[in-house]
Amino acid sequence: MAQPTGDIGLIGLAVMGQNLILNMNDKGFNVVAYNRTTSKVDHFLANEAKGTNIQGAHSIEELVAKLKKPRKIILLVKAGSAVDSFIQQLEPHLDQGDIIIDGGNSHYPDSIRRTQELEAKGLLFVGSGVSGGEEGARYGPSLMPGGSPAAWPHIKEIFQATAAHVNGEPCCDWVGETGAGHYVKMVHNGIEYGDMQLIAEAYDILKRGLGLHEDEIAEIFTKWNTGVLDSFLIEITANILKFKDDDGEPLVVTLIGEAVFARCLSALKEERTRASKIIAGPEKEQFKGDRKQFIDDLEQALYASKIISYTQGFMLMRQTAQELGWNLNYAGIAQMWRGGCIIKSVFLGDITSAYQKNIKIESLLFDDFFNKAVHKAQPGWRRIVAQAVLWGIPTPAFSTALAFFDGYRSEIVPANILQAQRDYFGAHTFRVLPGKENERLKPGEDIHINWTGRGGNVSASTYLA
Amino acid sequence: MAQPTGDIGLIGLAVMGQNLILNMNDKGFNVVAYNRTTSKVDHFLANEAKGTNIQGAHSIEELVAKLKKPRKIILLVKAGSAVDSFIQQLEPHLDQGDIIIDGGNSHYPDSIRRTQELEAKGLLFVGSGVSGGEEGARYGPSLMPGGSPAAWPHIKEIFQATAAHVNGEPCCDWVGETGAGHYVKMVHNGIEYGDMQLIAEAYDILKRGLGLHEDEIAEIFTKWNTGVLDSFLIEITANILKFKDDDGEPLVVTLIGEAVFARCLSALKEERTRASKIIAGPEKEQFKGDRKQFIDDLEQALYASKIISYTQGFMLMRQTAQELGWNLNYAGIAQMWRGGCIIKSVFLGDITSAYQKNIKIESLLFDDFFNKAVHKAQPGWRRIVAQAVLWGIPTPAFSTALAFFDGYRSEIVPANILQAQRDYFGAHTFRVLPGKENERLKPGEDIHINWTGRGGNVSASTYLA
Repeated sequence: MAQPTGDIGLIGLAVMGQNLILNMNDKGFNVVAYNRTTSKVDHFLANEAKGTNIQGAHSIEELVAKLKKPRKIILLVKAGSAVDSFIQQLEPHLDQGDIIIDGGNSHYPDSIRRTQELEAKGLLFVGSGVSGGEEGARYGPSLMPGGSPAAWPHIKEIFQATAAHVNGEPCCDWVGETGAGHYVKMVHNGIEYGDMQLIAEAYDILKRGLGLHEDEIAEIFTKWNTGVLDSFLIEITANILKFKDDDGEPLVVTLIGEAVFARCLSALKEERTRASKIIAGPEKEQFKGDRKQFIDDLEQALYASKIISYTQGFMLMRQTAQELGWNLNYAGIAQMWRGGCIIKSVFLGDITSAYQKNIKIESLLFDDFFNKAVHKAQPGWRRIVAQAVLWGIPTPAFSTALAFFDGYRSEIVPANILQAQRDYFGAHTFRVLPGKENERLKPGEDIHINWTGRGGNVSASTYLA
Repeated sequence: MAQPTGDIGLIGLAVMGQNLILNMNDKGFNVVAYNRTTSKVDHFLANEAKGTNIQGAHSIEELVAKLKKPRKIILLVKAGSAVDSFIQQLEPHLDQGDIIIDGGNSHYPDSIRRTQELEAKGLLFVGSGVSGGEEGARYGPSLMPGGSPAAWPHIKEIFQATAAHVNGEPCCDWVGETGAGHYVKMVHNGIEYGDMQLIAEAYDILKRGLGLHEDEIAEIFTKWNTGVLDSFLIEITANILKFKDDDGEPLVVTLIGEAVFARCLSALKEERTRASKIIAGPEKEQFKGDRKQFIDDLEQALYASKIISYTQGFMLMRQTAQELGWNLNYAGIAQMWRGGCIIKSVFLGDITSAYQKNIKIESLLFDDFFNKAVHKAQPGWRRIVAQAVLWGIPTPAFSTALAFFDGYRSEIVPANILQAQRDYFGAHTFRVLPGKENERLKPGEDIHINWTGRGGNVSASTYLA
């Protein structure tokens, strides 16, 4: 039999898989394509892949036989049992050190398990977040590979060549151990929803608060896109606002957005319509302040809220890394999101710089650049939230970010009241603040106070709230 | 053998179980007590239960033999496998129509499963929320029984006699089918945490905002406890604030509250302390307005936020009831929480009235009483949140409640921007608003717009965000 010539195999010829194959082929890699329904392989070779170096395989055995060692095989199939099923089919045909890569939307605990199971058998596993949709897959996605560290040197060249590039740097690096790749992709998705919600709140304030027309709002977003907010989502929002229907009206005002997030407030369309008839907001007051200042304040409110959102995302990753013993590549993660995906932005370059300067910073707010930025943004941010509250315009994301910021920068938070309440009604005990110790309040002890002077020594462990 | 004389059996002689037995005995019921470690039974009979009518049992067989039919047996054991284990042990000894009651902290899906499994065998199951801690169990808890409706007529007398009473009405009624009792207890716990957080925020505003002493704050809470906020938690907060350490200082200021809720901001004590050194809040400004008005505003802010918190709790129950086909007893649920538990308050009487007037109201805000209350509270509520934002005092619960309120009373929310963004980058499609239809935007159709004028017809189903 001829020497195998395949650099990498890919299972699953849906649009994402096809596009990723074409992308890797463009970058000079020899890809072997396989699909359970093999007619799809033939169709792909005869159409999209025509005239390329892409090879087809009509069985798992053929796929494996066509790959150079250590073999690298990407699965782009439905998350869940399909991934386990293909892993099972592949295993008997693979040799020690071969690499199975899951590029689907798997839940990270599954990737932790698969890494452990495959490593126990002498194989290597990579769970990789893939972001950027079909266009990303075709021309450069954000790739977030984690799993068996020993796999990385073998896949690094292909992955980094295939990923998006920003300023010559690939949007792909090693994320961390076991399920880290899929975990980081999950955090990415949360941050993406947050970015979108923040933009929607800014739009609402400009629209209902200042009463601006979509064309004026588009202009503001276009300007913001040249500053600290420079990002794909700000850019497309400007484009969306400019887009006219045939009658010359902005198309966006004709959309129903109710189905975006099921079960949240936006899904309760009919109930909200009825509620709007029986609940009046505050008296509508014309804005009398400095409009330009207000719009600059809003830019700062959006920027500061975004800093908090990303701060939280990175704190979440740090917490999980501590619990699971992962060594996460924080600078690399920001770089991976820098291009190729929906949240791509200049902002992410600043996060990369922060973690390159000091990978151990507690949070982004401890980095000089972001610390200065949030201090500068703070007065405007507060004015915007206060004004929106008085206007009756809901800003859940702006407000929550600000509440987090104010809690985070407070040495004392009023949790002492909660602790006292719990000790009062359920004997949950408390500890004494350093410097406040005395005979009754001993340092390091769990103290219960008989607040009422009656009742016995109930024990918290048996209390049912 | 003698005729059985036991009205009800109880398994699990920890403090909660013992207290509930003593309570039922006080109300004139003959209770049979059993515990896996049978020495506990003897100890209980020889001590706490001495001189009562309480009977002991040293085996499951003996327990069952001492009970009148249909037998009623309450489990007060650790949630999880212990409940299933005792059910398994009981089953072979029970007859058709006998009733097993789980009074522990079970997760409601387990109660759904247990109802179905036991009904399939001709037995009846009740999963009952029990709230009020040890004192509640002893002198009158809040009881929230759900499960097999056929069980209710048999346990109603015992349950209602044993529960707390307010104005002669028992804080116990039938909640609904299968897991409804434990589900409603879970919502109760969420509401309880919410109430505590709201009070902590009010305290923080009075302390750090107005700069009041604990004695002054205690006075304010004492006054609030005579008005719409009249409740156990407001009462004990006043008592906590008045409680002095030996040196005459309020004890509450010496407590560490950090361990209350693990993993939330309050748990990051050391990181917050460092953050407080490098992040400055807004310039501290002395309050120059009308203090009395401000404190009245704060009362209204607390009241309105509480209305929203309970509105959300009841919306959550309605949603789950729809999904699972439960017929929930909303007026009864508020009445069950009216006494015997931590959240007991006058307020819950108003909720009972609202659902007695109309069990089909979409939410509390559609009820005249609460509608008027929230309109009255609105201006002060907004002033408080705006002022706290400008002061830099975190009010996550006040703000989130207000954002919900403003979203709920808005016919249009800016979800249209989110929907357009998702259609732009991922072809997620949208629908057209009624009245805005045209040739391109057809009613009832899922519409995708090529916003950029380039690119193909990507399909949302294959898009990976």
